[in-house]
Amino acid sequence: MDLAAILQGIGADMAAAPDRGRVADYIPELAQVDPARFGIAVALADGRMLTAGDATVPFSIQSISKVFTLAIALGRLGDQLWARVGREPSGHAFNSILQLEYEKGIPRNPFINAGAIVVTDAILAGHAPREVLGELLTFIRTAAGDDDIHINQRVARSETETGHRNMALAHFLRAHGNLLNPPEKTLGTYFHQCAVDMTCTQLARAGRFLMAAPGMPHLVSPSRVRRINALMMTCGHYDASGDFAYRVGLPGKSGVGGGILAVAPGRASIAVWSPGLNDRGNSHLGSLAMERLARATGWSVFG
Amino acid sequence: MDLAAILQGIGADMAAAPDRGRVADYIPELAQVDPARFGIAVALADGRMLTAGDATVPFSIQSISKVFTLAIALGRLGDQLWARVGREPSGHAFNSILQLEYEKGIPRNPFINAGAIVVTDAILAGHAPREVLGELLTFIRTAAGDDDIHINQRVARSETETGHRNMALAHFLRAHGNLLNPPEKTLGTYFHQCAVDMTCTQLARAGRFLMAAPGMPHLVSPSRVRRINALMMTCGHYDASGDFAYRVGLPGKSGVGGGILAVAPGRASIAVWSPGLNDRGNSHLGSLAMERLARATGWSVFG
Amino acid sequence: MDLAAILQGIGADMAAAPDRGRVADYIPELAQVDPARFGIAVALADGRMLTAGDATVPFSIQSISKVFTLAIALGRLGDQLWARVGREPSGHAFNSILQLEYEKGIPRNPFINAGAIVVTDAILAGHAPREVLGELLTFIRTAAGDDDIHINQRVARSETETGHRNMALAHFLRAHGNLLNPPEKTLGTYFHQCAVDMTCTQLARAGRFLMAAPGMPHLVSPSRVRRINALMMTCGHYDASGDFAYRVGLPGKSGVGGGILAVAPGRASIAVWSPGLNDRGNSHLGSLAMERLARATGWSVFG
Amino acid sequence: MDLAAILQGIGADMAAAPDRGRVADYIPELAQVDPARFGIAVALADGRMLTAGDATVPFSIQSISKVFTLAIALGRLGDQLWARVGREPSGHAFNSILQLEYEKGIPRNPFINAGAIVVTDAILAGHAPREVLGELLTFIRTAAGDDDIHINQRVARSETETGHRNMALAHFLRAHGNLLNPPEKTLGTYFHQCAVDMTCTQLARAGRFLMAAPGMPHLVSPSRVRRINALMMTCGHYDASGDFAYRVGLPGKSGVGGGILAVAPGRASIAVWSPGLNDRGNSHLGSLAMERLARATGWSVFG
Repeated sequence: MDLAAILQGIGADMAAAPDRGRVADYIPELAQVDPARFGIAVALADGRMLTAGDATVPFSIQSISKVFTLAIALGRLGDQLWARVGREPSGHAFNSILQLEYEKGIPRNPFINAGAIVVTDAILAGHAPREVLGELLTFIRTAAGDDDIHINQRVARSETETGHRNMALAHFLRAHGNLLNPPEKTLGTYFHQCAVDMTCTQLARAGRFLMAAPGMPHLVSPSRVRRINALMMTCGHYDASGDFAYRVGLPGKSGVGGGILAVAPGRASIAVWSPGLNDRGNSHLGSLAMERLARATGWSVFG
Repeated sequence: MDLAAILQGIGADMAAAPDRGRVADYIPELAQVDPARFGIAVALADGRMLTAGDATVPFSIQSISKVFTLAIALGRLGDQLWARVGREPSGHAFNSILQLEYEKGIPRNPFINAGAIVVTDAILAGHAPREVLGELLTFIRTAAGDDDIHINQRVARSETETGHRNMALAHFLRAHGNLLNPPEKTLGTYFHQCAVDMTCTQLARAGRFLMAAPGMPHLVSPSRVRRINALMMTCGHYDASGDFAYRVGLPGKSGVGGGILAVAPGRASIAVWSPGLNDRGNSHLGSLAMERLARATGWSVFG
Repeated sequence: MDLAAILQGIGADMAAAPDRGRVADYIPELAQVDPARFGIAVALADGRMLTAGDATVPFSIQSISKVFTLAIALGRLGDQLWARVGREPSGHAFNSILQLEYEKGIPRNPFINAGAIVVTDAILAGHAPREVLGELLTFIRTAAGDDDIHINQRVARSETETGHRNMALAHFLRAHGNLLNPPEKTLGTYFHQCAVDMTCTQLARAGRFLMAAPGMPHLVSPSRVRRINALMMTCGHYDASGDFAYRVGLPGKSGVGGGILAVAPGRASIAVWSPGLNDRGNSHLGSLAMERLARATGWSVFG
Repeated sequence: MDLAAILQGIGADMAAAPDRGRVADYIPELAQVDPARFGIAVALADGRMLTAGDATVPFSIQSISKVFTLAIALGRLGDQLWARVGREPSGHAFNSILQLEYEKGIPRNPFINAGAIVVTDAILAGHAPREVLGELLTFIRTAAGDDDIHINQRVARSETETGHRNMALAHFLRAHGNLLNPPEKTLGTYFHQCAVDMTCTQLARAGRFLMAAPGMPHLVSPSRVRRINALMMTCGHYDASGDFAYRVGLPGKSGVGGGILAVAPGRASIAVWSPGLNDRGNSHLGSLAMERLARATGWSVFG
């Protein structure tokens, strides 16, 4: 069966699925998104792009942005970054402060909220938020080969107003000496970083640099690509990362906007979007679509 | 550089390494093993076997046995097994009882001790320990194509006498209704299962069924191979699984005897052994050898 | 209003109360006790004994026995006991193993199960269980001035067969080096200690040594009486100790058999029994009766 | 031996004690206090005031203020307050955020920081910080019968600038819907409340309303006095409350400024101050002085 037909089948079934999960409601602006949406886009190593459903509708990438800021931070700081953040799955919810106390202010990995806040704080050092956000957009636009990618200011504002849990994390990090900038500055940047709007097509293109395939954008070194992919595999879906590895078998990163970016090394960069979340905070239909695609294509890295 | 030369280089360097970690001392019989030992063996998809160092000296595989009992349990129970054990990294030490209370008696994954005890308990249902251990040995011998693989009774007894923490886990599981057999029966089986002696060569051969390559022993279905590999990637090195994925990029399982089994899907099955452990409970030199081999060969699944 | 009338009023109301809590069902022998039972007995400093309800029906004192073993252990070991067990409220359920891991095998206080097991283990050193249980019975009988107090062998056996959680705690303590005897020996003694049967009248009399009043049995020194009372106040009702102090204002110790022993220093020793428990594991009507008695008499130690 | 002589003995010994604990350094303004200070004051039921040492030197009462705000909050809200905060010892450090996550935003008791922030938030409802702080000062001045009690603005500012951990707690409470005012407003009030300066003499006088003795200021009802005392007993010294009950046997509340207020119901109100803290965050010499005073006087509530 060819890939285009597979995608059409997935798109059709997901559009009709009765159980669509629950749209995140803690960020007011995101709560208004239509749960009927579903899109998928696959960028192949040969340069082709295949899509199905709402692949050209922009959505808020949210935590998927953490992949890009991690790439930037590793480029700027290298292994020094790991003095401030770990590389282990958390065993707790994505916004847990409990683990953070247990570990004395060193977040378990760069993809839980506390860890991502530290990463953003690290690349802010000596820069204005505007510069850092500019660098992030440049990185994403270059990766995607598309300049029409922007920060959604309404979403950014919406997070700023309701982000008490992230404020708690930031102040807690600061209390432990693991936040170099004022909490408001780091969080202001973090909220804007999460508020980038992208379409599935744009996101699949932006993820090509993680394919480590000839002809793909070369934004970080091959060894760093492998390491980012490894972190996505073990930590990319919060406390459901093990389940995603088990079912899908690809490195991936989800966001509460309902998007997931996954990478089949050497073969494809895949973006999927459906706003309803499962009880672990990952896109319900997005996860199912990834599982089905991986099974149909045999793209699992595990054999 | 060819693989044989790479292995010779690793073997020579590891034999001479001054910092060798610390041999596990909580099982008396294991505490006597010579920390100077180092062996490595690689079984390739083309049937070749390359080795270096003490690759034919038997050692206690300990927790690596969990890979084989998981394969047996999945064959017997299928997805029903997941009602009794999870698939997520633990975020805690390998023998943590804390997590178990938090999760009300459902171990986080089949590779932490509590989870492995549940797996052994599951395959014991309606069978005598002798039968289950016989089935395990048959599985391993078939996988390795070698009948000269045995349980070390002295090691088994040594564990039985000192395994108070595992006894605590078993009774705790039983109190939560997640142990069907008497704790003594399940643990007796578990301690014997962990006491299998193998050489690196035997272990590398036994791991070939996880390569999912033509000509390799076909003991479980391809989709199950992928899933076992996924669990090894996210949970195979306890609370250092993220780090192993980051540094090595291969599914792997370690044991406190100092062994590690890793799989490069489609390419190789790798066994390494050095008895000294690092502070996470994994073989110190074994981890370094795996990292060096992965870098030299580019076998990482992550690109 | 005189005390006899107060007790009659409490007895009548409690006998008629519709909501009686839930009888503990994890020890089969206790699960059969009639939830309609309610008894109360008050031993006064002037030697009088006032009662209401089923004050002469024997019940299983269970964890109330921990007060007596603590008194014996302090007499034998003095402050050395505190090297093995703490003196702080636990902040967790009475049989939590989580806290124990966090604190590396040192139970938070002598009244949670793990702590009481350590206390029993301490007084077992160099003695046979039979001797220790004999000493305990002698202590209780002397305190009560009544030789007709015995261990209920059926209850003891019932606990032995189902006590997996306590077995887990004991093995865990042993793994941390904080159990000197084999788990089976210490737990066998512990289960028998908890299986002492007493009536409210006997228990109220047995508690008189904690009144620190002239003419009362003098079994431990005045300073030790104060310290045992302090521990009962802060730790005697598991994770509802703060609430008992708030509502009743007296040192007290509860048991899952539905009994509570409380002390009004200089004034009275009070025993109450009703088998139904509230959601914190303490006697539901017994707690209410204690609150009402304390309010009517003004016996709170807090002013 | 008469009380005046006892106090002189304590004062002399404490002034000469070589090990004085460690002055809190996380609030810059407090870090400058001279560790050589020691003062004690006892207000008796007969109206006498006895003192020793630096009893008339003002110090920052810090968390001792929580006793007064709790009294005000109970007066204003009554038992409704307990919907937002518990009454159990925490089993964790005074500023733990871990427990708060575990309990889903309901602090364990009103004396740990999170609980005290909720209490302050509760009395702020519909009022300006200035009004609430005015009411607090009025309460304390009335209790002490002394109008010369003020907020130290330098200390209040010093806390505001460094209080990241409290900011984290406040935002976390807000994220759980258990903070009605903006975090900055509640914390601004809280930091000022903690910054009240008092002398031992003033504090001992202010604590007389908790003695429940004739002729003492009657600021809250007798039943409420008992309840506040109960909370001080079980929760007043953070994770050393059990130890304080064991050693001293009186309800007490400590502050990181080195002060402790304790109450001997019907007999005395006691204030002690020495700035060096022990490893639990309570005044080192202050705790020892309380223990010695309680032993010499026999004022323990426990017999």
